[in-house]
Amino acid sequence: MSLPGPFLTRLREIFPAGSLFTDPADCWVYGYDNSKRQVLPDAVVFPTAHEQALALVRLCNEYRVPLTARGRGTGTTGATVPLRAGVVASFERMHRVLEFSPDNRYIVVEPGITNQAVQDHIKPHGFFWPPDPTSAAFCSVGGNLAYNSAGPRAVKYGTPRENALGLRAITGAGEELRTGVYTTKGVVGYDLTRLLIGSEGTLALITEATLKLTPLPETKRTLRAVYVDVNAAARAIARIMAQPAVPCALEFIDGNAINLVRRYSTAGLPEGAGALLMIEVDGFAAAMPPQIESIRAAAENEGLLEFSVAETAEAVEALWQTRKALSPTLRKAAPKKINEDVVVPVTELPALIAGLDELSKRYELPIVNFGHAGNGNIHVNLLYDPNKPGEDDKAHACLDEMFSLVLALRGTLSGEHGVGLAKRDYVDRELDANALSLMHAIKRQFDPNGILNWGKGFPEENSRVHSA
Amino acid sequence: MSLPGPFLTRLREIFPAGSLFTDPADCWVYGYDNSKRQVLPDAVVFPTAHEQALALVRLCNEYRVPLTARGRGTGTTGATVPLRAGVVASFERMHRVLEFSPDNRYIVVEPGITNQAVQDHIKPHGFFWPPDPTSAAFCSVGGNLAYNSAGPRAVKYGTPRENALGLRAITGAGEELRTGVYTTKGVVGYDLTRLLIGSEGTLALITEATLKLTPLPETKRTLRAVYVDVNAAARAIARIMAQPAVPCALEFIDGNAINLVRRYSTAGLPEGAGALLMIEVDGFAAAMPPQIESIRAAAENEGLLEFSVAETAEAVEALWQTRKALSPTLRKAAPKKINEDVVVPVTELPALIAGLDELSKRYELPIVNFGHAGNGNIHVNLLYDPNKPGEDDKAHACLDEMFSLVLALRGTLSGEHGVGLAKRDYVDRELDANALSLMHAIKRQFDPNGILNWGKGFPEENSRVHSA
Repeated sequence: MSLPGPFLTRLREIFPAGSLFTDPADCWVYGYDNSKRQVLPDAVVFPTAHEQALALVRLCNEYRVPLTARGRGTGTTGATVPLRAGVVASFERMHRVLEFSPDNRYIVVEPGITNQAVQDHIKPHGFFWPPDPTSAAFCSVGGNLAYNSAGPRAVKYGTPRENALGLRAITGAGEELRTGVYTTKGVVGYDLTRLLIGSEGTLALITEATLKLTPLPETKRTLRAVYVDVNAAARAIARIMAQPAVPCALEFIDGNAINLVRRYSTAGLPEGAGALLMIEVDGFAAAMPPQIESIRAAAENEGLLEFSVAETAEAVEALWQTRKALSPTLRKAAPKKINEDVVVPVTELPALIAGLDELSKRYELPIVNFGHAGNGNIHVNLLYDPNKPGEDDKAHACLDEMFSLVLALRGTLSGEHGVGLAKRDYVDRELDANALSLMHAIKRQFDPNGILNWGKGFPEENSRVHSA
Repeated sequence: MSLPGPFLTRLREIFPAGSLFTDPADCWVYGYDNSKRQVLPDAVVFPTAHEQALALVRLCNEYRVPLTARGRGTGTTGATVPLRAGVVASFERMHRVLEFSPDNRYIVVEPGITNQAVQDHIKPHGFFWPPDPTSAAFCSVGGNLAYNSAGPRAVKYGTPRENALGLRAITGAGEELRTGVYTTKGVVGYDLTRLLIGSEGTLALITEATLKLTPLPETKRTLRAVYVDVNAAARAIARIMAQPAVPCALEFIDGNAINLVRRYSTAGLPEGAGALLMIEVDGFAAAMPPQIESIRAAAENEGLLEFSVAETAEAVEALWQTRKALSPTLRKAAPKKINEDVVVPVTELPALIAGLDELSKRYELPIVNFGHAGNGNIHVNLLYDPNKPGEDDKAHACLDEMFSLVLALRGTLSGEHGVGLAKRDYVDRELDANALSLMHAIKRQFDPNGILNWGKGFPEENSRVHSA
């Protein structure tokens, strides 16, 4: 235990029994996330109100105790792992709906509410909130906002930055603030709302969010297009995104992934399938035929092997079979995978896949790719066995080259997972040096003592701030 | 002429003859905008390249000379009026398309290009850029970004913040930077792109912008709904925005505006019309009937007098007649108008209009309202005669109360015009004090000597910075 006694006494005044853990056995599970990284925090607290979180930040700031906000631990980059121990603030008990205005299309929620609970609350009124990470059933809205996490629907409906109106937050300096508006337009002052969204808990703790809601479409259709290779699929992706029937999902699976599924499962795919697109369109039922026709025309090229439209629920299930078989198959194929979420312009997808194939051969490591093709956002899965000598180093050397490839193709290192620990040492390869230095300066303003989420995003600067 | 000699010598090295004005007769027209405010700048320069703009900012920074960026002067808030004279940088000659990638749905442009020129460039390829201020034919993209200006289409397609991917810019400290990505997703680092968008030229000069493009819809239909009063219209607006046929325009005209048009023109409206909605929907032709039906159902209530769908170009013209007659009518009705662009949550529109009617009676000044109802963004037009003694003071006292009303209704002072000079003294009524102080700190970081667009947005802080 390294927390000062007077600090602990005052922490206990803010967080009564049951809302404060200091026993390592209790704290243990709050020190990891889905990246499998782990650091044991000195204490874990469970705020249930803004004022409590405010008192917490002020206390940590006074004693310079590291403070890490945590949603539900579904992140994959280690962003909530408390590198320097200190206090973890788990927002899981702060999950109320504070206000729901269907007529103004917004809902005000606390950060610990799950994405699914928001959807459940608003669906009976005919609305949804577009961000849909795979972990939607468990992940918190606070986490979605902290990492600007999205999912397949982003291709039509955007990410949290396009679907949040305002925030209530507490800076690392212990100052509370409100950002944004209750309306879908507003241009007074600088855009602090979007500055906080995606800042990974390094600038402020979010204690309240006003989310912009979207009316549910009447219906949805699922289509599948199978291609001989990734080049043909990439041409189709560009054409699909240039026609007016914007899909609400445009998912890609590469040839390696198809072969892997074939090995362990029945893929139900034509011979010679080298790439696969899963496409969904939504809207009015009467609009389905022209939308499907427009997408079919865009999907058509000399490399198209098969184009299917699911007419029944069973047919939808059958079309998704390959995609759904992928994750369990990946677990069978290798003891460990590094799952990245790089993004490249759509026209660079063939070069990305070709480059990854070359790396796969050279490093003798299987690489399997799938993801949100409409955004050029590809989940690159590097499969390896960490128990084999040297394999872990090899995988990380390969990863390093992969990031260089992505940047050479004008891409970005992350489309939805964020930086966290996993990519913090690569950030300065992507970001402009002056932009990075302005980000450091903004960090210092919001969190002058560097107490918030130490070591994430910009490690060198963070440590400099902290030791200052 | 108050510019130091050595400064002018070096300015002439950067800007050769023809790209630098110092004669007051030449400079005169670059000191005003559509707010009719004017201050004569000491010099006007016309950059044609990023490097030239960079040299300019560095020189101004070295000599602490105020520098104001200017697009085409169509702004209505005085935001480009050079309050402390100095240098105006007019970007009108820096208007190239640097790159257009239809397959990746982006275009990279210089800031001086007009909104219309962008639309003309991309339309043949089946795209449009959603922001559509009324001044689209003349206004620059740099100006659209600086003020986050949008128009009717924002209700479906968003503002510049939702339609820009990245920027190249020069901070007030003379540092060049690139922000954002070339893709529609990207979560590495803080969101400096959206921080610069809407910052009104107070943080940095934008020298390049990567705009996200949207495929043109197949067709569009125009509808009109006439109501007995604003309450009925507001109920319809909330219901229209809650159904899945999101309109691409949802414009509102209040009873005072209708009466005014009736006085000066033929309105072609039923008796008892107390509010009017102009609605447009776009998409596939086959999707028009269900969209129109869904909107008709939402628009229906006991206060609906008439619902029309235009089937021909002439019918579209006829439906827009009242709206189009409004602007010339306003000019006939009063020598001067204050045109605000406040926003309130849709459910508060009746309270806003009722409050404005009360102010209109009490101050004995006509107030006429219309605007982008789907966003709750209302253009409030205060009509008066500045030549009548005391009338100007009265109008501004009324304006002051109007802003209080908007804020009491949880609204914002500006939805698309921005702050500029016109609203800078009201900003601290809307913005949270801690948020405002963080904005000041961000301003100091980007522009430590306070040279950029002095006195705009946050006047007190700006002057403090400048005199420091």
